[in-house]
Amino acid sequence: MSQTSPDVEQLLRLISRDQRLESLPRTGWQICGVDRPESIAAHIHGVTLIALWLADHQPPPGANVERVLRIALVHDLGEAMLTDLPRPVKELIGKDVVDQAEDRAADHILEALPSWRSAFQEYRQGQTLEARIVKVADRIQMLARALEYRHQKRGETSRFFDTSTSFDARGVHLAAEIFQALRRHFDDKTWFDPHFD
Amino acid sequence: MSQTSPDVEQLLRLISRDQRLESLPRTGWQICGVDRPESIAAHIHGVTLIALWLADHQPPPGANVERVLRIALVHDLGEAMLTDLPRPVKELIGKDVVDQAEDRAADHILEALPSWRSAFQEYRQGQTLEARIVKVADRIQMLARALEYRHQKRGETSRFFDTSTSFDARGVHLAAEIFQALRRHFDDKTWFDPHFD
Amino acid sequence: MSQTSPDVEQLLRLISRDQRLESLPRTGWQICGVDRPESIAAHIHGVTLIALWLADHQPPPGANVERVLRIALVHDLGEAMLTDLPRPVKELIGKDVVDQAEDRAADHILEALPSWRSAFQEYRQGQTLEARIVKVADRIQMLARALEYRHQKRGETSRFFDTSTSFDARGVHLAAEIFQALRRHFDDKTWFDPHFD
Amino acid sequence: MSQTSPDVEQLLRLISRDQRLESLPRTGWQICGVDRPESIAAHIHGVTLIALWLADHQPPPGANVERVLRIALVHDLGEAMLTDLPRPVKELIGKDVVDQAEDRAADHILEALPSWRSAFQEYRQGQTLEARIVKVADRIQMLARALEYRHQKRGETSRFFDTSTSFDARGVHLAAEIFQALRRHFDDKTWFDPHFD
Amino acid sequence: MSQTSPDVEQLLRLISRDQRLESLPRTGWQICGVDRPESIAAHIHGVTLIALWLADHQPPPGANVERVLRIALVHDLGEAMLTDLPRPVKELIGKDVVDQAEDRAADHILEALPSWRSAFQEYRQGQTLEARIVKVADRIQMLARALEYRHQKRGETSRFFDTSTSFDARGVHLAAEIFQALRRHFDDKTWFDPHFD
Amino acid sequence: MSQTSPDVEQLLRLISRDQRLESLPRTGWQICGVDRPESIAAHIHGVTLIALWLADHQPPPGANVERVLRIALVHDLGEAMLTDLPRPVKELIGKDVVDQAEDRAADHILEALPSWRSAFQEYRQGQTLEARIVKVADRIQMLARALEYRHQKRGETSRFFDTSTSFDARGVHLAAEIFQALRRHFDDKTWFDPHFD
Repeated sequence: MSQTSPDVEQLLRLISRDQRLESLPRTGWQICGVDRPESIAAHIHGVTLIALWLADHQPPPGANVERVLRIALVHDLGEAMLTDLPRPVKELIGKDVVDQAEDRAADHILEALPSWRSAFQEYRQGQTLEARIVKVADRIQMLARALEYRHQKRGETSRFFDTSTSFDARGVHLAAEIFQALRRHFDDKTWFDPHFD
Repeated sequence: MSQTSPDVEQLLRLISRDQRLESLPRTGWQICGVDRPESIAAHIHGVTLIALWLADHQPPPGANVERVLRIALVHDLGEAMLTDLPRPVKELIGKDVVDQAEDRAADHILEALPSWRSAFQEYRQGQTLEARIVKVADRIQMLARALEYRHQKRGETSRFFDTSTSFDARGVHLAAEIFQALRRHFDDKTWFDPHFD
Repeated sequence: MSQTSPDVEQLLRLISRDQRLESLPRTGWQICGVDRPESIAAHIHGVTLIALWLADHQPPPGANVERVLRIALVHDLGEAMLTDLPRPVKELIGKDVVDQAEDRAADHILEALPSWRSAFQEYRQGQTLEARIVKVADRIQMLARALEYRHQKRGETSRFFDTSTSFDARGVHLAAEIFQALRRHFDDKTWFDPHFD
Repeated sequence: MSQTSPDVEQLLRLISRDQRLESLPRTGWQICGVDRPESIAAHIHGVTLIALWLADHQPPPGANVERVLRIALVHDLGEAMLTDLPRPVKELIGKDVVDQAEDRAADHILEALPSWRSAFQEYRQGQTLEARIVKVADRIQMLARALEYRHQKRGETSRFFDTSTSFDARGVHLAAEIFQALRRHFDDKTWFDPHFD
Repeated sequence: MSQTSPDVEQLLRLISRDQRLESLPRTGWQICGVDRPESIAAHIHGVTLIALWLADHQPPPGANVERVLRIALVHDLGEAMLTDLPRPVKELIGKDVVDQAEDRAADHILEALPSWRSAFQEYRQGQTLEARIVKVADRIQMLARALEYRHQKRGETSRFFDTSTSFDARGVHLAAEIFQALRRHFDDKTWFDPHFD
Repeated sequence: MSQTSPDVEQLLRLISRDQRLESLPRTGWQICGVDRPESIAAHIHGVTLIALWLADHQPPPGANVERVLRIALVHDLGEAMLTDLPRPVKELIGKDVVDQAEDRAADHILEALPSWRSAFQEYRQGQTLEARIVKVADRIQMLARALEYRHQKRGETSRFFDTSTSFDARGVHLAAEIFQALRRHFDDKTWFDPHFD
């Protein structure tokens, strides 16, 4: 009698796939020698938080905050099937082939959620302000984590600040300044103290 | 010359506090004997995702999706200063005292972000539809994780489904049905296979 | 027929609570970035051993060695219920409130063992020579562990030797000299080699 | 000028050796498949606590409590040099040869502490009431830990309760009853709940 | 003056790539819920040992033992660049694409070692007795590890013995009998005791 | 009816013993402060690979490659019963006594495999070119791992390159040059980048 409705069944399956992101590590850190680095789930959380801050700070006419958050939440969901392949592995297989596989994974996972699926595609195309905010947030999260790991003496993450690299602000307000501030922390060998203040 | 502006400084400090949530475990699972359980950051991610799904599925006039996501993102940020105190520790200290400490922590962390701070308070009060959606999402995330850990034979988490417990749907559409579906999985000893389908 | 007597039941319950101290970490080290630091149980062992050495070395009329060891063994037993709350968490909640909670925990655990309970209270008051020996041993154990972790390049523990800090010998013979020797190891960046000599 | 005195130097060296016991695992549990089992330091703490309880409960003329605690504290210190060799390794090398090596290790570590060294020898001979109390405490600690690990579904520790084994109370008051109570827990598949009550 | 010769340089680079196989896990076990499973290096060791035993036991005219061991040693070296992609990830990307990437990786790593490179290709083609012995050894190693993990209650590995599966002996003497013996262990829920006999 | 033949039974038992080498750590690294160092199984794999390269590069009349690989595969199998005892533990017990125990272990494990057992004895005696190649490979594997761990900032492994040490090439072609190249990496503080090139 009390059967699970298709909607609810869909949610539970979505949750079960999303759960995997907690045990899947961000492999880029592992290659840098960071033992037990952040999970993909923790990464997505960080990106979403930063994206919200950026969205709140865009000058008029501003960004669609709901859309920004939706994009941030789904931007790495394909990795629940594909895992986070390290960059050298992607290059060995071919970046396009891997991107297509991730698209297929996202399509499969978000099948019955059109507004989520379109958010993923919007991120992939990277044209709208909302997608660009998430791309910038993704980069900020990564650089801040690299600074944290250096501060904790975990692994060797300085390559993320290779001097030849200039980070692309993508027209997002405050992004260039944030990247500069992160680079200053890198140059000055500083980061925030972890002592719970 | 190129000094970091107060806004950007505020963001970096916020990020550094949020980063701690990746290394802080959800202690309730540890007490159940789950070794290396999910982090607070991964928990928040899961709650945010579920909250988005619930918000999308509320019948007219619907929920304010942006507000739901904002509440979900901040609802446990106070733990960046307080850590996730296990329930028995809270009871020993006094639940009210701990709640007040968490309020102070959230106030401190979100000081210059009024719309974030009000979202935290809205969650604490738990009256609006948006706050109730996040509270229900928080519970769903926990029950689904308990099912996952049981499926993985990690720890002893069945107490979360104690038969005397009835989960409060808080007037959120589909919540009661979702709780029933989760309990069915508990009773049938089933959960989704982790094999990346 | 063969029922467990109240005495034996009391012992088994005491053991089961004490067992938790092996899985509970000393959180101060975690905040310093030490992964998998010593347990509370290992800390208590170290304190007891050092306290015995100090008690053996007090000039006439000497210390009551049995009492010293009894105090050392129970001085952190309350943490079997309260866990080892990091200093910033204690400050956020209020140090007095936390102390009272720990007193309640110790009272509960040591309920039927009056001489153990009075040993806990003696430690809390910190007046007798025996209590002061254990307080000094507690500090020595912590500083020596900080030196060990620095030698192993685990975390950042130098704050324990902040130059502004002067360690209180509390009238315990040799304590001042031991603190000086530890500080010399800190200044000279030395500690003993772990190679099992 | 301010040189470290021989006494203090001796203490620091003793501490540095004792510190190793926190990173050295009790290997018997590892062979049973328990991942990251208790350290030798945590084991010694447990034995000392149980030995104190037993000493407190001996009928007149009673035990020398200070001596009991001294013996408990040193009974495994030789393992700071020898490590905790698993039983099959001891048998392969020859139990006598290993015992002699442990004696040499203890002699070396406790060289300048005659009352500690004699306590180690007293334990080895196992004749006095004080030594027998520690031997019984050592066994109780191990059986209680086996019950805890079974309760936590870690490894396969039932061999410690092999029905053919009868535990030797060694004339220690209450020991036989305690062993029976532990066996009842084994037979009934019970142990205390870890939920911090 | 004393420059490293190209040969020696080649060896050191080969070693440095091979070293990675010690930190790279066999991901199939992780998907089954085995925490910290064997490394690729340990897997290769097991396969090589089993392959030697099989080679020694082939009836006249026998196998070329040196060739068998050479093939076993290189059969997974490509994973030093590609990592061990879980089966579902391979299927999502396309098994042929992944195989080609692994071929490119092996070619790159074994560039200047023609007899090693041809051994890899011989394994890929799987026609010669020597290659078939290694393929059978690879399967035996995996099934024996699945039995070990089940015995240790780590993860859920029974799918490797799915009743519909019949293991291909590939014309290798004793292989069919070995597969049967492994299945009997699976059916009888037995495996060898880990107690170092 | 379908009983396991003695041969196959022997193989399964051999595999089960060899499996332990995956969970047994190389303890020398642990004493140097390397957390979770390589297993014995991974060590044997590295030695076998290096030994194959050396065997391939010996000038005429060359080495018996099959014999080299057989020796490499069995040279540490005794540790499946004895574990990898740290050097100070060996010295405390007596190196000869430990060697004899390892011989007994190897004899027991390889009982019914005469050509494997004679390979173990050949290694112990260390006279033949084939045995000397494996001894040199064993040393090269260890030094290269020490360089890798230093590069990863894991533990303190420089003692392996103590300037007073001269590595014995044992008449193996290229060995002296390889040792020099490794020492140059040590002096120059270099090693290969782990980024999967």
